Amino acid sequence: MRPQIVLFGDSITQQSFRSGGWGAALADIYSRKVDVVLRGYGGYNTRWALLMLNQIFPLEPELYFQVCSCQHQTGSAKPPVAVTIFFGANDAARLEGTGKRQHVPVEEYKDNLRKIVQHIKSGSPNTLVILITPPPIDVEGRREYARSLYGDKASETPDRTNEATGVYAKQCVTLANELGLPSVDVWSKMQETEGWQKKFLSDGLHLTPEGNAVVFSEVVKIFDEAGFSDLPYDFPPNSEIDAEHPEKAFLQHCPAV
Amino acid sequence: MRPQIVLFGDSITQQSFRSGGWGAALADIYSRKVDVVLRGYGGYNTRWALLMLNQIFPLEPELYFQVCSCQHQTGSAKPPVAVTIFFGANDAARLEGTGKRQHVPVEEYKDNLRKIVQHIKSGSPNTLVILITPPPIDVEGRREYARSLYGDKASETPDRTNEATGVYAKQCVTLANELGLPSVDVWSKMQETEGWQKKFLSDGLHLTPEGNAVVFSEVVKIFDEAGFSDLPYDFPPNSEIDAEHPEKAFLQHCPAV
Repeated sequence: MRPQIVLFGDSITQQSFRSGGWGAALADIYSRKVDVVLRGYGGYNTRWALLMLNQIFPLEPELYFQVCSCQHQTGSAKPPVAVTIFFGANDAARLEGTGKRQHVPVEEYKDNLRKIVQHIKSGSPNTLVILITPPPIDVEGRREYARSLYGDKASETPDRTNEATGVYAKQCVTLANELGLPSVDVWSKMQETEGWQKKFLSDGLHLTPEGNAVVFSEVVKIFDEAGFSDLPYDFPPNSEIDAEHPEKAFLQHCPAV
Repeated sequence: MRPQIVLFGDSITQQSFRSGGWGAALADIYSRKVDVVLRGYGGYNTRWALLMLNQIFPLEPELYFQVCSCQHQTGSAKPPVAVTIFFGANDAARLEGTGKRQHVPVEEYKDNLRKIVQHIKSGSPNTLVILITPPPIDVEGRREYARSLYGDKASETPDRTNEATGVYAKQCVTLANELGLPSVDVWSKMQETEGWQKKFLSDGLHLTPEGNAVVFSEVVKIFDEAGFSDLPYDFPPNSEIDAEHPEKAFLQHCPAV
């Protein structure tokens, strides 16, 4: 079992292994060192995320092999070395729009995030937990996208606004500071770049490859500071293998994790 | 623990999570269903692959938690539902070229592949094992790549030839037929397309995004036939969650695996 990084979030995490995605890019740079585990759930908010916590992050070693009534094994064999928590885009959906089912009030959003962090940390205090804010919203991009799907029947009422999402982003960063956790303020970071609306967002909400690159570089910065780039290979590099006695390199190579 | 697909191979597997990569594309389409586990080892041949087998594919459940002398936990909690075995590009390196350290005679290559399959099947007979042949070689592309790195000092002796690699590819397919396993003949498949040398290969050996797409579509075809696209989501889709009583969908949703 190699060390694991779990990416826990909504569709922006679920889609992170598409071409140019930030999750796939993490899996690539840690390809010989760490397993990047995808736990992205399209459409989910933090309220629903709480309902999965015990299964995705089991607290007791014996729970790793808990089998539910239909024999579905859940959990993982070892707590992850790091978790990214990337919710808020759906919590911030407006009560007035098509995403009202997904709306979670901002105080509850912050409280749910705190519960997720506390759950993970209670099972494994050394796990590096990173909070990621939702990306900014381009209302016009959302509208164009809705029209491309539904034509004249597209709702004219925005499902999300940039201002509302910004309030959630702020609370996410505030919570990270309160808990002493690193955070990535994607909402602010993206808006530093002119033309962020089309450059970083494909439909006013989800990420283009350039938008994925922003998330990737910010997350990797934190992993680098935590020394992840120094993690050992699971097996010896090709160059260390003596073609005459290949077993030697394997016997000598036993990474301390 | 979700079902796992393990991608076991050399650099063409290790690099499969780069942008447009076939591994990332698999992780994306199975993002709510299966974990795609990357076990790609750049430069490795089948002889060296044998030295990792017991750790990557532990045979006994108790071995899943075997701890080596330096406390490095190895293995996985459950045998994988599928494994792709994608070696041969290095085995087929010519004894006359710069890759001679990596060369493995073709009879031994076939025998090593057989041992890998037998090992996996002995621990878990129902695991779907797919054998993938090495891609074709573009000697001119290899030469250009070497020149871009070393200029005039680049070796003029080819490290690989398409004909030699073709012999390995043929033995790979023959073995799959002998063992009744599905196989992907990447070597032949790619050469059906005019201009395969530049279209599918970036340096005469490794894959462009278009080359990755060939591997992805051939592998997915086999997974589809095995019913993988019908595998259940690990947690309910957003659309099935009642916003007033979200816990209901989670209690009802227990995927049989």
